[in-house]
Amino acid sequence: MTYTVALIPGDGIGAEVVAAVKPLLDDVAEREGFEIEYTEFDWGSDRYLQEGAMMPDDGVDQLRHYDAILLGAVGHPDIPDHVTLHGLMLPIRKELNQQICKRPTELREGVQSPLRGYEGGDIDFVVYRENTEGEYADVGGREHRGFEHEVAIQSAVFTRKGTETVVREAFEAAAERDGKLTNVTKSNAQAYGMVLWDDIVEEVGQEYPEVTVERLLVDAAAMDFVRRPEAFDVVVASNLFGDILTDLGAIISGSMGLAPSANLCVDGDAPSMFEPVHGSAPDIQGQGIANPLATVLSGAMLFDDLGEDTAGDRLRQLVDEQLADDSAPRTPDLGGDAGTDDVIKDLRARL
Amino acid sequence: MTYTVALIPGDGIGAEVVAAVKPLLDDVAEREGFEIEYTEFDWGSDRYLQEGAMMPDDGVDQLRHYDAILLGAVGHPDIPDHVTLHGLMLPIRKELNQQICKRPTELREGVQSPLRGYEGGDIDFVVYRENTEGEYADVGGREHRGFEHEVAIQSAVFTRKGTETVVREAFEAAAERDGKLTNVTKSNAQAYGMVLWDDIVEEVGQEYPEVTVERLLVDAAAMDFVRRPEAFDVVVASNLFGDILTDLGAIISGSMGLAPSANLCVDGDAPSMFEPVHGSAPDIQGQGIANPLATVLSGAMLFDDLGEDTAGDRLRQLVDEQLADDSAPRTPDLGGDAGTDDVIKDLRARL
Ligand SMILES: CC(C)[C@H](C(=O)O)[C@@H](O)C(=O)O
Ligand SMILES: CC(C)[C@H](C(=O)O)[C@@H](O)C(=O)O
Repeated sequence: MTYTVALIPGDGIGAEVVAAVKPLLDDVAEREGFEIEYTEFDWGSDRYLQEGAMMPDDGVDQLRHYDAILLGAVGHPDIPDHVTLHGLMLPIRKELNQQICKRPTELREGVQSPLRGYEGGDIDFVVYRENTEGEYADVGGREHRGFEHEVAIQSAVFTRKGTETVVREAFEAAAERDGKLTNVTKSNAQAYGMVLWDDIVEEVGQEYPEVTVERLLVDAAAMDFVRRPEAFDVVVASNLFGDILTDLGAIISGSMGLAPSANLCVDGDAPSMFEPVHGSAPDIQGQGIANPLATVLSGAMLFDDLGEDTAGDRLRQLVDEQLADDSAPRTPDLGGDAGTDDVIKDLRARL
Repeated sequence: MTYTVALIPGDGIGAEVVAAVKPLLDDVAEREGFEIEYTEFDWGSDRYLQEGAMMPDDGVDQLRHYDAILLGAVGHPDIPDHVTLHGLMLPIRKELNQQICKRPTELREGVQSPLRGYEGGDIDFVVYRENTEGEYADVGGREHRGFEHEVAIQSAVFTRKGTETVVREAFEAAAERDGKLTNVTKSNAQAYGMVLWDDIVEEVGQEYPEVTVERLLVDAAAMDFVRRPEAFDVVVASNLFGDILTDLGAIISGSMGLAPSANLCVDGDAPSMFEPVHGSAPDIQGQGIANPLATVLSGAMLFDDLGEDTAGDRLRQLVDEQLADDSAPRTPDLGGDAGTDDVIKDLRARL
């Protein structure tokens, strides 16, 4: 079996970790009896600085027929974020209809959480984030620029379809895991979008009597990620709330360098996109010390998505083994002094 | 000197802590040579259940001529949040033009943070939250209810005036503190409201060359509240972001039971309102174990606002002394088994 994967290394440490992780993915694929055919796209900020665009006009269409996409990171200190992101990452999520962003949060054995009293194994949940609408909708405007009465409107758009899609997947996940779903909204202050969302959670919930639903306001949820993270199983949230909560999730589970993510197209046959949650991190770019494990774990989610779960499990198991081993190389974000390549070399040796 | 204070004990533990704290405020006032004349308002959920409204139609106007307002909490398990909040707390914030919500976050000596390695004194910053518009604007709607193509719009409204007001106060505070302001937005994904906000921070910043401005995206800010809370001095954020960040701030500094807040009217002569950040907490209502310290510290901010800073400082000092004393009574949220009244009694004795 051969799968086609579009590889977008992108900017900063994104490019470094993707380059490092690729041979490991190949090793695992070979062991499991399949092959990956990569097509590499040199899209990103360097291209923007040379040609004035992050990717070609038909960029998103070029990706459509691949089985999956692996993205490093997007962002450059000399280019405004909204240019790089709206030029590359966000249009892929939107135009390929990747309606769901799935982000697991696990405190692994051998990793220290910044939270007192939490040890490896104590935190294990997954966030389902709506990924193509909500507070990220490009709807709004500014009037009376510079005048005293200037006003800006920023409109969040929630469709039944978009909300139902992520809510249903979250219920499915909860039914397969520990049967608990936490629905995070802010309906006490946002009476339109968030109330539609709550209504849909209640409706879809009827079909999953075996799943217990807990409702939390986003402020309380952020607090509870710190106060009682062990209580979560599956969390479902809007685009913005999911964004905030998954960064919090990454940090309580030890490092941003360990957090993977999957942008899933579940409706239609466009490919899904896998990427580490961390960004391009210009501050450590070029030093060879970026943690590649978030990308390894994103690769595992990519394998799962291709139906190659055994390969996905193998990758996760390798990461677990390495982290649990005191003498294994660790990058500085985990308190070690190893480089990106040392970590990958060690994983390949373990294989 | 006599000041008039409107007292709204409100719901659940809100009523309990306000009742407990009142005599302590009187003691301190007496020592400092002023008097408080309270008018108590029986507004809240009980009133709603009997009369169908949280407060009278002219409720907000009744408050207008007081020097300050002290609020307990609002919220009832049998009444939807949007009814209780839009019936009482939110209209006061909006109609009395309390444009700024100021919330200090301090990890005090003797209090344990859930963050590993942080000790009393290590965390000390203050959040300035926009309080009357932004993502809490009551603008939006739902169409095609129940149909497949249903859509809800939730519009955030940012005015130059509202933004400038909170941003300027935050710069003032930073200039008086350690000269560092962190501006939290999400401009990479929200190109209208948040970009106006960033522009205003840049403009107002010209007037405060002595203040260093750091820009953080809200997801990174949430993460940094956990990863490096010692790095913050003054934080300025929108209504929603301020809401989320101050709950996080409360929890990293040991307990929601210690977090005070001030809803400040800085433009016009309406009174400001002081309230603990915690809610009505129906789960512990009636047990006499609610932590009154958030309300004591809110009372201290009220004294500051009246110009009675010495009284405010005295209250804060009493709280510091008590918390630093191992043998002093503590409520369960701080790991003790004392009751609300024990804590207040001890504070009054210390006075
Ligand atoms: C870079 C930014 C637009 C993006 C987001 O907010 O979605 C990132 O924070 C993420 O979580 O993938
Ligand atoms: C109760 C709720 C509307 C309120 C808010 O979000 O403002 C509360 O969380 C707060 O922070 O004071």
